[in-house]
Amino acid sequence: MREKVLSYLEEYKMVSENDHVIAGVSGGADSVCLFRVLLELREKMGFTLSVVHVEHGIRGEDSLRDGEFVKNLAREFGVESVLVHCCVPQEAEKRGISTEEAARILRYEIFEGQAVLREREYGLKSSQVKIAVAHHREDLAETMVFHLCRGSGIDGLCGIPPVRGRIIRPLLCVTRREIETYLIGRRQVFCTDDTNQDREYSRNFIRHEILPKLCEVNKGALKHMWEFSRELSEASGYLKEETNRVFSESVRQGEGAVFCDVEKLFQNPYVIVKRVLKKALEEAAGSSKDIAREHVEELLDLAEGGVGRKASLPYGMEGVKTYGEIAIRKGRKECPGEGLVFGVLEENLARGEAGAIIATPKGKIFCRIREFSKKDAEIPKNKYTKWLDYDKIKNVLLFRTRRRGDFFILDGKGHRKYLKDYFINEKVPREFRDEIVLAAEGSHILWAVGYRISEEYKVTKDTREILELRFTEE
Amino acid sequence: MREKVLSYLEEYKMVSENDHVIAGVSGGADSVCLFRVLLELREKMGFTLSVVHVEHGIRGEDSLRDGEFVKNLAREFGVESVLVHCCVPQEAEKRGISTEEAARILRYEIFEGQAVLREREYGLKSSQVKIAVAHHREDLAETMVFHLCRGSGIDGLCGIPPVRGRIIRPLLCVTRREIETYLIGRRQVFCTDDTNQDREYSRNFIRHEILPKLCEVNKGALKHMWEFSRELSEASGYLKEETNRVFSESVRQGEGAVFCDVEKLFQNPYVIVKRVLKKALEEAAGSSKDIAREHVEELLDLAEGGVGRKASLPYGMEGVKTYGEIAIRKGRKECPGEGLVFGVLEENLARGEAGAIIATPKGKIFCRIREFSKKDAEIPKNKYTKWLDYDKIKNVLLFRTRRRGDFFILDGKGHRKYLKDYFINEKVPREFRDEIVLAAEGSHILWAVGYRISEEYKVTKDTREILELRFTEE
Repeated sequence: MREKVLSYLEEYKMVSENDHVIAGVSGGADSVCLFRVLLELREKMGFTLSVVHVEHGIRGEDSLRDGEFVKNLAREFGVESVLVHCCVPQEAEKRGISTEEAARILRYEIFEGQAVLREREYGLKSSQVKIAVAHHREDLAETMVFHLCRGSGIDGLCGIPPVRGRIIRPLLCVTRREIETYLIGRRQVFCTDDTNQDREYSRNFIRHEILPKLCEVNKGALKHMWEFSRELSEASGYLKEETNRVFSESVRQGEGAVFCDVEKLFQNPYVIVKRVLKKALEEAAGSSKDIAREHVEELLDLAEGGVGRKASLPYGMEGVKTYGEIAIRKGRKECPGEGLVFGVLEENLARGEAGAIIATPKGKIFCRIREFSKKDAEIPKNKYTKWLDYDKIKNVLLFRTRRRGDFFILDGKGHRKYLKDYFINEKVPREFRDEIVLAAEGSHILWAVGYRISEEYKVTKDTREILELRFTEE
Repeated sequence: MREKVLSYLEEYKMVSENDHVIAGVSGGADSVCLFRVLLELREKMGFTLSVVHVEHGIRGEDSLRDGEFVKNLAREFGVESVLVHCCVPQEAEKRGISTEEAARILRYEIFEGQAVLREREYGLKSSQVKIAVAHHREDLAETMVFHLCRGSGIDGLCGIPPVRGRIIRPLLCVTRREIETYLIGRRQVFCTDDTNQDREYSRNFIRHEILPKLCEVNKGALKHMWEFSRELSEASGYLKEETNRVFSESVRQGEGAVFCDVEKLFQNPYVIVKRVLKKALEEAAGSSKDIAREHVEELLDLAEGGVGRKASLPYGMEGVKTYGEIAIRKGRKECPGEGLVFGVLEENLARGEAGAIIATPKGKIFCRIREFSKKDAEIPKNKYTKWLDYDKIKNVLLFRTRRRGDFFILDGKGHRKYLKDYFINEKVPREFRDEIVLAAEGSHILWAVGYRISEEYKVTKDTREILELRFTEE
């Protein structure tokens, strides 16, 4: 046991010399074993040890007895111990969670608090104070089966990590039977921990009804699940790293939306693409809850579809395929961030009879650049057809939705009007404002489709070339 | 059912128009359902259908009755059917495997044979003839649990693939209950298939004792396991691709060994490095059986260790850390392939008092280049110290083990002697020949450490600079 735990501690670099290790000891067999093993190893490995016992305030007399037992055990071996009381049922009610869940959260919060105290007391860096908890192979297997049934995917199936932040689990490499054998060998008594009986039904059911059967199929089942968990954790870590890398390369966040660069993203393998899209959804939603496989599938469809295609997503989000991107709108805001770009006017396409066509969610915009001869001087008044002075456009012409700071030029004197104020004047309902397609040069709006054009680009008798824009509804 | 299977067929592109699908029908509920569903879909999807029934020669009368049933079922719907008899027990004995295993192998061999016949008969390409088998969600879950207990890692946990070559599994998306409901709805009878009772103990145990309990933990357990299998298969496929890519970049195969370029290999994430090393081991062994985690760990240690370190590996293989590489020797052969390189003489290091040291598994070779003055003309006769004419060395001087074609120059006339013949003359035991360290320029051996030097490099009175080589045992 001692050697096994030692090499496990070393393999995962759980403890370094001069570290301080806080052992979480409930008084049950597992944590008493943890305490004794750490005691045997502390000199060799050069760390110091203390004990924290959390009294959950659930089991009354028994609970107080366990606390007393742990205090005496620590004193017997000359180790400092701290008893912390908390009231789990109250906390559970306050947070609206199960007793089991509340106990778990409080326990780790208390451990963390004690760790911070030790840092100050001993003048250690935070990485030098570890919290050791007594999970073993059965706990791991139980967690894995639980997640297998619940469907939490690869990350869930990894089970319990041997190291998470400053939490370390030195006993994850041993079985309950090894723990018992060890304790008997040391003539070490322990408390019969009733909390296991209190644990939520399905966990207990897995432990007592399923794990023994898995061991009947193969004697080494627990060991094999432990090994599988290691292998899967490595694979999962790698997938996460790759996902983060591709995410940072191909996803950018505006104020109002998350934008995925389709070309960059789809250079990567499908499995990574999916994970990046999921992460993008989670970023946009601000939560990873309820983001499911089918939402990712919708984004995949979107990526393959044409510009302007939409998908409705959880958390009131919306996905839109725009010019080279998938945009996931975080939700409606009166102050828009970055407009969705549906297309760019390319001069060589828009010249000539055929013109260019820009697809938007509302409809198509036909664009054509042509010479302006005095003969056809009758400038259309049509709401959906506009002529603009093409020579006035110095930069790229974008077709997009609104952004913060968008404006028109109101009159010949160059007075500006913010688009937002214009929409308010025109009584355009808020929920429509984000959807109106704009032809824009920078923040300067040439035309809000269905509404006015900017005075600046008006056709005059000096105009040499015109840009003809014609909108047709979908 | 019909729609579910249809979209599953489409998702995995299992069948294309004008394909021919051979349904493997045992007569049991699953395969009868498979037959009926394919029958319903064949027109819509534009494929043709036939039935193959394999009679295993195990269950006597019952077995013949099932064959009769399948023949009649196919005739009823106007579908061509073929009955193939085989003798499983005989085959099992011949191959030294279980009846169950033999039945599985024979079944797929027969299906494949029938598929090839159909190709010829209908003039189809091999990709156009599919073999449909009736595995469903419980089969998948059963396989997953089996592998979880046995410890076959990520690739095993992927379970049963929906598509493997021309084998397709359209029912993997439905449960046994859905199959039964479907059959009742169609008033379709089927044979009670006893083979399930005959199946190996642990599989049946999983199906009847474990799966129902997993469904107690979570009603959707089978569905979740199916989804997990999909996710894991994707991840596994990606890992395999990456592994293959890195393998081809950093592993090369000589005749006698597999060589892993340490620098190139370790630029990659650890999880991929491990998989590449495992693949290298499998290549060297010519088998993936019994290649375990601990052998990969040994290679990792080797990679981090010094030149000349060794590890013994399964299949009588040996790992050696050489100059920038890990070499996995495939086993001893009289005709050597590529020698393991332990070091290269670098001129700037070997000049001056300090000289250079080359580490080999047998010991260290101290190398020094210095001026040859007539005063110290007493050339050492020591077995382990040699002086060579440095100016004669035109190319890189390697310290390595033997390769095919290695030779000495025997005398002043330039006669060659092959190293192999030299060793035979000297009565060097075969098992040592591969281990002798050589100083070599191309195939020309300057010095076989502990043996002779080449006449060509002998120090003469014209020598201006000498290379001093001194071997000390480890």
